Amino acid sequence: MILLHLDRNNKKPVYAQIFEQIKEMIDTSVLTPGTVLPSTRRLAEKLGVNRSTVFTAYQELWGQGYIEGKTGACTTVRRRVPAGDDASRVDDQKKDWDSRCTRGSRDTYEIFKGFRPETANHINGANRAENVINLAQLDMDERLFPVDDFRRCMNRVLLRQGSGALGYGEYSGYFRLRETIAQRLRFHRISTSPEQVLITNGSQDGLELVLKVLGVKGKKIVIESPTYAIILPLLKYFGLETAPVPMTAKGMDLDYLEHVFQKEEISFLYTMPNFHNPTGVTTAQSHREALIELCREYGVPIVEDGFEEEMKYFGKVPPPIKSMDRYGDVIYLGTFSKVLFPGVRIGWVAADADFTQRLTAVKRFSDLTSSPLLQAAVDEFCRGGFYTKHLKKMHRVFRKRMQTALTAMKQFLPTGKVSWNEPGGGYLIWFKLNGCSADEPELIKTFLENGIVVSPGRYYFQTEPDEKFFRISISTLDEHEITEGIERLGNAIRNLY
Amino acid sequence: MILLHLDRNNKKPVYAQIFEQIKEMIDTSVLTPGTVLPSTRRLAEKLGVNRSTVFTAYQELWGQGYIEGKTGACTTVRRRVPAGDDASRVDDQKKDWDSRCTRGSRDTYEIFKGFRPETANHINGANRAENVINLAQLDMDERLFPVDDFRRCMNRVLLRQGSGALGYGEYSGYFRLRETIAQRLRFHRISTSPEQVLITNGSQDGLELVLKVLGVKGKKIVIESPTYAIILPLLKYFGLETAPVPMTAKGMDLDYLEHVFQKEEISFLYTMPNFHNPTGVTTAQSHREALIELCREYGVPIVEDGFEEEMKYFGKVPPPIKSMDRYGDVIYLGTFSKVLFPGVRIGWVAADADFTQRLTAVKRFSDLTSSPLLQAAVDEFCRGGFYTKHLKKMHRVFRKRMQTALTAMKQFLPTGKVSWNEPGGGYLIWFKLNGCSADEPELIKTFLENGIVVSPGRYYFQTEPDEKFFRISISTLDEHEITEGIERLGNAIRNLY
Repeated sequence: MILLHLDRNNKKPVYAQIFEQIKEMIDTSVLTPGTVLPSTRRLAEKLGVNRSTVFTAYQELWGQGYIEGKTGACTTVRRRVPAGDDASRVDDQKKDWDSRCTRGSRDTYEIFKGFRPETANHINGANRAENVINLAQLDMDERLFPVDDFRRCMNRVLLRQGSGALGYGEYSGYFRLRETIAQRLRFHRISTSPEQVLITNGSQDGLELVLKVLGVKGKKIVIESPTYAIILPLLKYFGLETAPVPMTAKGMDLDYLEHVFQKEEISFLYTMPNFHNPTGVTTAQSHREALIELCREYGVPIVEDGFEEEMKYFGKVPPPIKSMDRYGDVIYLGTFSKVLFPGVRIGWVAADADFTQRLTAVKRFSDLTSSPLLQAAVDEFCRGGFYTKHLKKMHRVFRKRMQTALTAMKQFLPTGKVSWNEPGGGYLIWFKLNGCSADEPELIKTFLENGIVVSPGRYYFQTEPDEKFFRISISTLDEHEITEGIERLGNAIRNLY
Repeated sequence: MILLHLDRNNKKPVYAQIFEQIKEMIDTSVLTPGTVLPSTRRLAEKLGVNRSTVFTAYQELWGQGYIEGKTGACTTVRRRVPAGDDASRVDDQKKDWDSRCTRGSRDTYEIFKGFRPETANHINGANRAENVINLAQLDMDERLFPVDDFRRCMNRVLLRQGSGALGYGEYSGYFRLRETIAQRLRFHRISTSPEQVLITNGSQDGLELVLKVLGVKGKKIVIESPTYAIILPLLKYFGLETAPVPMTAKGMDLDYLEHVFQKEEISFLYTMPNFHNPTGVTTAQSHREALIELCREYGVPIVEDGFEEEMKYFGKVPPPIKSMDRYGDVIYLGTFSKVLFPGVRIGWVAADADFTQRLTAVKRFSDLTSSPLLQAAVDEFCRGGFYTKHLKKMHRVFRKRMQTALTAMKQFLPTGKVSWNEPGGGYLIWFKLNGCSADEPELIKTFLENGIVVSPGRYYFQTEPDEKFFRISISTLDEHEITEGIERLGNAIRNLY
């Protein structure tokens, strides 16, 4: 009989606890393929929970491919076919796709296979201790998703627009949503019109479109160092070179940047001025002004990633660089993923109208359109007042969570061993271990032994950094989990010296 | 006062008639920007319809950016900012994006600006006669969309999975949907597993991913001539060259193909064996076998576009080429757009597991994931039995529509002047005008004068064809409209000789 531990004080629903513990056992091969799981009735009796609770957990396991067989009847652990093992191959001749594929896709595949998503389940495939606190993951806290309000909006759209929301829709996106976004950007002092907005499949799609339009071979792209980890493989796919510019506590190192501009041919500059990923740094107002001037002088367009623009819960954050854009030089990327939920896959680009049309042209032949149904539902969510309500809640919740995190860091981290900056909002804290001799695998092992996962700074650099950096994300954790996680981090660090 | 003509016998809802007629007037500048529209109350009285009907039409016009102002209060025709006219530009310095952009994106932009979507509204910007029948558009008939059943499924998913459906989801797509698709493909004798399936944003996204992985510069891609119009700009973006192979009534010309294989370095072959777009040709079974053998011999992977696989309403269609794939050489593209509705933007690729992983790798860094919410809703739709029910209906409806179309062609088209093949299913009929001296603009003008729009064959060729080909689509028309449209086509053709 499998052993599960349910924690009634845990805010996570009981079905989710069952789901996760069984998933964990399959992932770690405690349960092997073919193992028969107890019936929902038997497991429910054993755990003293409602049968439908177990049923829901099994449904989810089935949905994610962990188990097979009819729920209720004989349910067994499924054989998960590993990548590269082709179940239908009847010929033993090895297919050599490598020799047929583009160089970009070969590089991407190598990166993909070696890439560690920032989740506990994947860090080095190590045996996970139970009850690990994930300080690595920049997902969103599912417990905060406004599911009911969104469902209401989805119903309104399907009842009111019906078929009209289920066609191909407009190439640049649902007009009303572009209007809503333009209006929302006005709160951030960005003056734009729906014609300057293109809806994308999350902001990653927007970033790729920008690369496809501006990524001229032979020119380099200025990135911050460190930078958003997932831009690096994308640049690799397109075979584009970068000119990394170090981040300072105020933003990009502008002297260094000018030096780069003088030496190199640059296609564009990519920056995250608010709550920078991974460092959490917010670029100062004077710094933003100097940056836009410098780029103007050298004729370099700026791609501003406003992925956490809305998470200014401490106030006192300068307006986006795009708000100072007098010449249409700034291409602004936004997303609903970091405030609402990622599952709608809606981001946007706001840029000079001609440039937006160029992006639209590429998108039109690349995937025709983004789903008008999701766009209409999100628009209804915004216009129905649910967005403002939800944003207020997110500010209230994360103001407290970040304060909790910063307090815990002061309380639990050993003095002198760790340095960090206090972020002005968002979800991320970047820290450095001072004078620590342990290497990364050892550090990750120690963290895991102490029941935490932290994201290694290396992910965010193109070349191995000299210092031991780590990124903490508080996006999926409540105050209790944050405090506990940082206390464990303190213990882990003490073990290292 | 604006003049609207409502047709109570038209199956199109009254609100849609109002919407379309006002839209038409704005598109043709009968109504100019700033024109005040009648209040919903007044227009409802005038037309003798319910006020909410007018309200719905106005909402839709507002949604698509045609009008502005509060509905009910003063509603005016909106100024639509044309592409390239940047409303926020305060400096008159012309931004020269062209000099900054990639060659692929410049080409794409030119194509996009010149591209005529296959709809009445766009053909040559000619003044549209009222009541044009659109025989060009390969959209879907919105009147057949199973909106209520889909809404029910969406609610089930949001109620049951809640937050779980709103995260990022799995890179290769929602497992249960991949399972459903694998099962559905088994009906078509394709043996595959969920691990070999990747969910994409419609099949265009799948096609682009295949290009990104297999589109090696310097090698050519075999396409059918004519072929799917929207693959051509995509190839242009990536700077990839083609080797077009003529279509015969049985499928690709295999002698010609072998000749190409002998002469050229080929990266892959792209084919639509069922109800080929635009010719409607279904490749014969023996021809499919010969094709797969030939490709095997020369080591060329096949990309099989099964965009209308499910629309075999006459029966008697051979199974997909993928069903004969013993070595994992066939990459199969599918979609829900041509059976269910395009607005969910869900397509898929089924291929050799290693190859599928390569596509997944590129997609993971390109747009992270496709919406798990839409995937779960479509999966629910399939598993709940709604898909089978809907498919049966589609078969019943289009079997009759296609029979109606073929009967009308025999009845109304002048003998000897027009040749066509009878398709074995799907939505398309391809015809040729024999010995017609008129040029394309003249032909299109004559068609429009007779109240129809047909898609010019030229769109589907890379080089101007010698003959006068046209494509008819019956996908959005009912039997009455089809008969009427083809009768008009007959009249138009008689006028040409």
